[in-house]
Order: sequence, then C-alpha cells, then structure tokens
Amino acid sequence: MITVKNNKLINYGNRGMDLEQDINLTNEYYKQKKIALIYKKPIPIKVLKINETKTRIKEAFYEQKSTLDYSGIYQEKYIEFDAKETNSKTSFPISNIHPHQIEHIKNILYYKGIAFLIVRFNYHDKTFMLPGNILIDFLNTTKRKSIPYSFFTDNCKEIKVKYAPRLDYLKTIDIL
Amino acid sequence: MITVKNNKLINYGNRGMDLEQDINLTNEYYKQKKIALIYKKPIPIKVLKINETKTRIKEAFYEQKSTLDYSGIYQEKYIEFDAKETNSKTSFPISNIHPHQIEHIKNILYYKGIAFLIVRFNYHDKTFMLPGNILIDFLNTTKRKSIPYSFFTDNCKEIKVKYAPRLDYLKTIDIL
Repeated sequence: MITVKNNKLINYGNRGMDLEQDINLTNEYYKQKKIALIYKKPIPIKVLKINETKTRIKEAFYEQKSTLDYSGIYQEKYIEFDAKETNSKTSFPISNIHPHQIEHIKNILYYKGIAFLIVRFNYHDKTFMLPGNILIDFLNTTKRKSIPYSFFTDNCKEIKVKYAPRLDYLKTIDIL
Repeated sequence: MITVKNNKLINYGNRGMDLEQDINLTNEYYKQKKIALIYKKPIPIKVLKINETKTRIKEAFYEQKSTLDYSGIYQEKYIEFDAKETNSKTSFPISNIHPHQIEHIKNILYYKGIAFLIVRFNYHDKTFMLPGNILIDFLNTTKRKSIPYSFFTDNCKEIKVKYAPRLDYLKTIDIL
C-alpha cells in the first residue's frame, strides 16, 4: 500500500517494488510530461530453435549484455544507463558490471553521451547515481573488487524515492 | 566475390549480402574509425516458459517492435533508424512501418534526435535515406498506402554501396 502524507511517500507494503519497476514508472512519467524519451532495451538472446512457421521460439539462451539496459534522449543528449541492486551492506561488487559494459560506458563518454549507473543498496534502502566518469576514475585508480558504500555517500548524489516521478534520476543529472 | 576495380566495387557474388549485413559492417567501420557509436537493438521477445535453472528459454514469441532497430550517438546527437527492404518495383508499402514506430519517430524528432529509415529497393538495387520528418510530412499530406519509388528518387538521397564504409549513411545525414 502506498500512502501520500504531507507530500511525502509513506510506503508500507511495496518491498516487492524493485528498482526496475521504479525506473519504468519514472520513464513513463518523463514520457507523459514530455521531459525525456527513455526506454528499456530488450534483453539480448541467442535463438537456437524456432517452430516451422517462425512465430515461436522453442529454444534460446540469454546472451551477455554488452550495453546498458536503458537508453534515450534528454535535453538533446544521448543518455544510457543501467540499474543495479545489491544486498551487500558495505559495498557494491564490481563483478555486477560486465567488462563489455565498462568498455561501452567509456565509448559513450568518448562520444559525449551521458552514461551512468543507478545503484540501489537494498540493506540501506538508498539509491545513488554513479556517473560514468566517476566509475571509470574509480576503476583506473584502484584494484578493489568492490566500491565501498561510503564511496557512494561521499561522492554520489542520492536519488530519493518519491510519489511522482518515482525516482527522479534526471534531476540528479541536472545537478551534475 | 568482391573485387575493387578503378576504386569502384564490382560485386559478383554477394546477392546474399542483405541490407542488415551492410549496415552492421558499416557500423563496425564507424566504431573502428571513431566516427559514431551505433548498434543494433536486440529483438523484443515475450518469454512464456523457461527452464528450472533460468538459463534457457523454452518457449517465447517475438513481440511487435515499437522502436527502430538501430540506435546510437553521432556528433553528440541521438540517432535512431530502421532498415527496410522491399521487392516492389514501384513503391514502398507503408505497412512495412508499424504505427508504433511512426509514433516513435515523431517522439525522437520532438526531442531533436535524428530519426530516419534506410530503404532498399531490391529490384532497382538502390538504397535511400528517408529522413523522419519527410516521412511524417508524407503521411500527413496523403492517404496513400505506399510511397512511390519516384518519391525516393526525387526527394531522398541515395546511399551508394561501396567497399568501406559499405553503406555510408552518416554522410547522407551530414548533407541534410
């Protein structure tokens, strides 16, 4: 159950509402308000078997993602990002980001697109915007296998969950 | 067999090389030369059945596409386009473009992205760039169910097949 009280969202029962749903709701809001055009990309699959009429896939597997999940346009800029959740209390494991995705982030930055991750720490119930350049700097300057929670609280903007838009991540871009 | 003679491509045996392959080769060239970052989106599917370990799809069907097949960044601009082939001699059937795709093109133009179709007439062995705004204008001013071939020759830039880049469609954008 979601209740709005004094303009603040009181969320009693939607622990099941995950980050992806939050982002999809937010993108729907951005689209309706003509703020931005952002959509989730289909998941890449490799089809192995298909029926005779070529209408049904009978066997396929998920392929490794080499790009980020969401892309679109905001303020005439190319934007692409991924949403990641972790149950860890202390850090975000870098293994959550595939090397191809890191290469892809570098490429987007090279072409002056906007690339970032939205990282949610379920334990702390906090969501952060991790800009692509800060991620790449981190990876270039340390051999750590995870990004400490304190790195997020010190270096990243928090994105608060609200009623509408649910997760106003574009506002965080404006600040940056 | 592909032979280059007097700087022109003589193509003896690749009738099987279709438009999608041409575009993929071109995008690979653009990426290597650091000209643009453009990739093909995965095909959207609806998964109905999956195996126990959630690694294999056992039943799925293809969903209607509501965006265009290729997207990326070029000259700091958002770019999205689709590749369409027709065997018709006289016209390109508008039924080849799903209404959701037309809505999507309008949205991209609203956000000042670059949207277009690459249309190949197999019969004439000619490939054209149809800019999104010209397509929308055409649809707004006529009730025709297809776009005549002469409309392409009169209003659209031809994209010639070459050795490398195979199908230099970004050059056509520069001219526009």
